[in-house]
Amino acid sequence: MDSTSQAKGSIVLSIDAMGGDHGPAAVVAGISRSAKINPDIRFLLHGPKDELERLVARRRNLQGRCEIRHAEGVVTMDDKPSQVMRHGKGTSMWSTVEAVRNGDATVAVSCGNTGALMALSMVRLRKLPGVNRPAIAVLWPSRNPQHFNIMLDVGADIRADARDLLQYSLMGVSYARNGLNLDRPRVGLLNVGTEEHKGRAELKEAHDLISAQAHEANFAFVGFVEGGDIPGNVADVIVTDGFTGNIALKTGEGTAGLIGDLLREAFRYSPLSRLASLLALTSLRRLQKRIDPRRVNGGVFLGLNGTVVKSHGSADATGVSAAVKLAFQLAETGFTNKLAARVASAADLDHDTRNSGT
Amino acid sequence: MDSTSQAKGSIVLSIDAMGGDHGPAAVVAGISRSAKINPDIRFLLHGPKDELERLVARRRNLQGRCEIRHAEGVVTMDDKPSQVMRHGKGTSMWSTVEAVRNGDATVAVSCGNTGALMALSMVRLRKLPGVNRPAIAVLWPSRNPQHFNIMLDVGADIRADARDLLQYSLMGVSYARNGLNLDRPRVGLLNVGTEEHKGRAELKEAHDLISAQAHEANFAFVGFVEGGDIPGNVADVIVTDGFTGNIALKTGEGTAGLIGDLLREAFRYSPLSRLASLLALTSLRRLQKRIDPRRVNGGVFLGLNGTVVKSHGSADATGVSAAVKLAFQLAETGFTNKLAARVASAADLDHDTRNSGT
Repeated sequence: MDSTSQAKGSIVLSIDAMGGDHGPAAVVAGISRSAKINPDIRFLLHGPKDELERLVARRRNLQGRCEIRHAEGVVTMDDKPSQVMRHGKGTSMWSTVEAVRNGDATVAVSCGNTGALMALSMVRLRKLPGVNRPAIAVLWPSRNPQHFNIMLDVGADIRADARDLLQYSLMGVSYARNGLNLDRPRVGLLNVGTEEHKGRAELKEAHDLISAQAHEANFAFVGFVEGGDIPGNVADVIVTDGFTGNIALKTGEGTAGLIGDLLREAFRYSPLSRLASLLALTSLRRLQKRIDPRRVNGGVFLGLNGTVVKSHGSADATGVSAAVKLAFQLAETGFTNKLAARVASAADLDHDTRNSGT
Repeated sequence: MDSTSQAKGSIVLSIDAMGGDHGPAAVVAGISRSAKINPDIRFLLHGPKDELERLVARRRNLQGRCEIRHAEGVVTMDDKPSQVMRHGKGTSMWSTVEAVRNGDATVAVSCGNTGALMALSMVRLRKLPGVNRPAIAVLWPSRNPQHFNIMLDVGADIRADARDLLQYSLMGVSYARNGLNLDRPRVGLLNVGTEEHKGRAELKEAHDLISAQAHEANFAFVGFVEGGDIPGNVADVIVTDGFTGNIALKTGEGTAGLIGDLLREAFRYSPLSRLASLLALTSLRRLQKRIDPRRVNGGVFLGLNGTVVKSHGSADATGVSAAVKLAFQLAETGFTNKLAARVASAADLDHDTRNSGT
């Protein structure tokens, strides 16, 4: 891989060109945009060689910075994760993850089938020592100074016990440090009320476990938070199980989508409102930019030997470029190793505590 | 109760004047507004006599239509439900529920502490025969022709097994018929994916139970739905457990609140955007009216011997009036008895099926 060798100051990202709703053209347009802005990124691009060569040849700024790795197969949105795990070897998704596994790239990015990507990442990258359940973390528009909160798990696993929720806290804290540049993130545990006696038994147990680690792991534990705090300024990291997190994520996205549609409808209503919408165009664009899911594009898989960024299936060039930006930042900060160290030291600590307790 | 006797065509609602954030003045203003619009409502108003008499005396349209029932105590937002159940007898909330229990009024309305109101309603009204867990149902702005979906449970109980979810379906269908005038409501079961193999075990079991009752109970079962479908046009009734439903509700409300704030901020940004916001005022008001939580104000407690409408604690006169409107509609359609019949017939059916199966 001469053209993408790890020159000083350059970071190699592994990109799945296939499986997104808009096909490889949107992916190539997205990485081209990132390449233009950031001279330190190089790409390994996975998919059908001929098609990708044609697309890349059209982008001057990708010349010499993008190596294509041929893969014939494509994982579709309808493919079952279990099948992809067993028979997915010739696919672009498999090849994308494999490049991180063997160290050719630092972080993988794919717009494809989430379940299949998670399953493949699990079997190929394997879980970090000390991690029971990996998690998917997303950025959520919020009232925080940094404009985003981190929420996890949003759907890697529908179950989570108290110890899993503790690990999610530690992984979320590490992500907040490296992805949002927060020194001492505030962690909240999602529940149906903020009183300590409320909620499910595993949440009360998790409350105590997380609280006990806060000082050692240098984060602030704000205790239980509610659904309304997810877009709020109470916590930077919102911890929950993958069932609840997935429902919350999609409810929030759906509600934002409904409001956006109704807003457009309202502005089309009369000549006066259409004029108003013209005058308000920059204001509305500013708002859209702030909450546009394409700009916070990228769920991150945490808890594996390697970092995988899952971009929205519907990502266009802007969306892909946002996912690449996030992947670059995580690669640059050495996130994977820092996260591994964080989880391992917590596991040690816990092991010590348990031993001393017997 | 001469002044509020059940004259032909008049319906008596039991109103808790206390416990809301804005005090009894907002409640009296709200019922006065409803009284003006709807000549068929009468009120039993519960709270400290002297204060309420002063407030009611100022409203001409409440004369002869509002009986005050003295109650010294007030349930605050901080009171524990268990304490209110044991020691709440002298409170306005207790008195409000009691009037429905002894048949003086058809439906109760309170802006007070949700947990306490649910607990009081449970012990005083008791569960309907055949109901294991009562539920709280809310209306959710959606893309449906009727502009709202019903979601339940949003927090009466953090647990729900498959049979509870079946009962929620039946109760939600009855509410959709009487509250939204839908003949054959579409029911969806909230999950993290729409494929039948996904999600928790109790959800797969509930899927089969609900599916088996759809024909008999005259509703359409659309199967699993996702968080994004809550504001959508896929189902009219969204069924879930009270933990998930509460998180979804508050996440949706929080997201809508954030967007509203950012929108206001965007319009304040420059002289041009301020001008635009003036021109767009009617459009924005139309949008706000469509999604304003005050206008869909009122979670309804389902599954008890009597109907209780829980208004937002922060409800102003508009909010209280919306809750009263909903309470009136449910009283007028004889909702409590219809719901009881629906649940009882399903329990019979289930009983028959089980017997014939042995």
